[in-house]
Amino acid sequence: MTFSIQPVDTALKAAVTDKIDNLTKPKGSLGRLEELAARICLIQQTLTPELRHPHNVLFAADHGVIAEGVSVSPKEVTWQQLGHFSKGGAGINFLCDQHGFRLVLVDAGVDYDIPAGHGIIDKKVRKSTRNFRHEAAMTAGEFRLCLERGAEVIDEIHDSTGCNIVSFGEMGSGNTSSSSMWMHLFTGIPLKQCIGAGAGLDSAGIRHKYEVLSDALSRYDGDDSVESKMAWFGGYEMVMAVGAMLRAAELGMVIIVDGFIMTSCILAASRLYPAVLDYAVFGHQGDESGHKLMLENLGVRALLHLDLRLGEGSGAVCAYPIIESAVRMINHMDSFKDVNVTKYF
Amino acid sequence: MTFSIQPVDTALKAAVTDKIDNLTKPKGSLGRLEELAARICLIQQTLTPELRHPHNVLFAADHGVIAEGVSVSPKEVTWQQLGHFSKGGAGINFLCDQHGFRLVLVDAGVDYDIPAGHGIIDKKVRKSTRNFRHEAAMTAGEFRLCLERGAEVIDEIHDSTGCNIVSFGEMGSGNTSSSSMWMHLFTGIPLKQCIGAGAGLDSAGIRHKYEVLSDALSRYDGDDSVESKMAWFGGYEMVMAVGAMLRAAELGMVIIVDGFIMTSCILAASRLYPAVLDYAVFGHQGDESGHKLMLENLGVRALLHLDLRLGEGSGAVCAYPIIESAVRMINHMDSFKDVNVTKYF
Repeated sequence: MTFSIQPVDTALKAAVTDKIDNLTKPKGSLGRLEELAARICLIQQTLTPELRHPHNVLFAADHGVIAEGVSVSPKEVTWQQLGHFSKGGAGINFLCDQHGFRLVLVDAGVDYDIPAGHGIIDKKVRKSTRNFRHEAAMTAGEFRLCLERGAEVIDEIHDSTGCNIVSFGEMGSGNTSSSSMWMHLFTGIPLKQCIGAGAGLDSAGIRHKYEVLSDALSRYDGDDSVESKMAWFGGYEMVMAVGAMLRAAELGMVIIVDGFIMTSCILAASRLYPAVLDYAVFGHQGDESGHKLMLENLGVRALLHLDLRLGEGSGAVCAYPIIESAVRMINHMDSFKDVNVTKYF
Repeated sequence: MTFSIQPVDTALKAAVTDKIDNLTKPKGSLGRLEELAARICLIQQTLTPELRHPHNVLFAADHGVIAEGVSVSPKEVTWQQLGHFSKGGAGINFLCDQHGFRLVLVDAGVDYDIPAGHGIIDKKVRKSTRNFRHEAAMTAGEFRLCLERGAEVIDEIHDSTGCNIVSFGEMGSGNTSSSSMWMHLFTGIPLKQCIGAGAGLDSAGIRHKYEVLSDALSRYDGDDSVESKMAWFGGYEMVMAVGAMLRAAELGMVIIVDGFIMTSCILAASRLYPAVLDYAVFGHQGDESGHKLMLENLGVRALLHLDLRLGEGSGAVCAYPIIESAVRMINHMDSFKDVNVTKYF
């Protein structure tokens, strides 16, 4: 499966900068709102951007590597929380309600028979990935299926609502392990610096996680392609998120990137299609060790630093009002050209 | 004029912590939202806090010290922008609209005859402070008047709307100079580290500003009291903001602190009434040199870092959705006690 992602056309940049610099404020004084407004204008190729029908797409799946004791969260938390999201009352629910996001729940590979009728979209590839310490987490066929199904979810949202801004979240005990592996493989940063506490490991737990991941790395038996590495160490929810991000970029949507796990997904996506980064806004830098390094490697800065480590898309959705502020700024502020205010600096 | 500010009663702390720790998320995983929720609960003395009718009160005044060439903004910008705020279309307007804030504009001492009928509250003490390089910026009587009038503005808002959360902003060419002086005098941090670019000085301009302020400091002819120092170097809008903050704390309201200038105001307020800090949430850390040092001196962290340097209350209002998220979290998330999710870490 291939995607056709156009790098953002920067011909409009001068007009965007001129418009922003003539808003009634000292030049540059709205800081990151100005940067963001410029980015959204370029993505949408307009001087009057709009944010329409934001969605938070949450992919859930289980991970075979959890058998190695790399996570403090028991596996049943994945399906329990997915059910909980569907009823409201979880962390991501109040954030989506607050900021007008529709929450889309996708079963990418949860190890549980999710009952129908709860609005959880069934894209299950298999009940849990395999244990990547001993074998590839997923087959090449499953990998392709994940990309396709992630793209389908975005098509459905885009076509039915006209949504042009989407954030992604995840639920999957063990998925920080997969993310650490992707980070190491796609940035070259030493594995040790790519590993953190996940949902709450202590230092002995982190040491054990390092030993398991280090051993898994030494046993890697795939080829040197990005796809093969992604498939060996990834999660179904992660590859599905990659497919969704790539389709979103293909459709010219704004992608709000959540924390450590979703950053590893857009990192991997960018190793397949570098232009995907043109469409990304990074919502939150969490305290998972390595996230800062990964963002630096990508040459980007997150909007928020609120010490969140919940996942679910929470950091991305929290950042939405900042993005909305940027759009309101460029649409609703007066220009020095139109009002009687001396231009100041 | 005196205020009666009670330190927040912390007896409720254990119950607040228990409630937050039992929400359906790994303990601590909502980071600063959890800290914020706890603070709002303690201010309001409840486990189910509410934010009612947020207001952004913007005090404007001119500064005599501007005659020394310490600001790149010409003085007329103060009244021009105040008029502009009253019509909508400025930076603070789109932010207030976005987050449901009522914007209250107060003429504390603008050097212009503001026409009536634009909704700008007339609390003018005098047309501009005096030049503090040569004499006290304001008299002791004017100082008291500012505190009283600031408090009156809050009384009116509180009594007429039931507002329980208020942010403060300012407009006044030259007021970073006053703020640098207060910062130096009330923290002991060397003056040089308290001086920055304001709305856009270059390095020669900053050097000149340092020379002027350093000279003014050496000529200070008041006594050693906080009040005397505030009056000598302050601005009418700044002392009025202090009065407003103190009354807001007295009434148990949440105070959202904006950037460098408003931080210097709550710093000064805290040197008169230390308990005022119990009611404060710091919205934004700007890139004005010294703001970081002042926040560290107060032992606090701002919520946002967006490189804003607009003033007007913009950083405080931008931070509001984060505060609202914290309140929604504690009111709307389920407890592990009520739902079928294994408690995880």
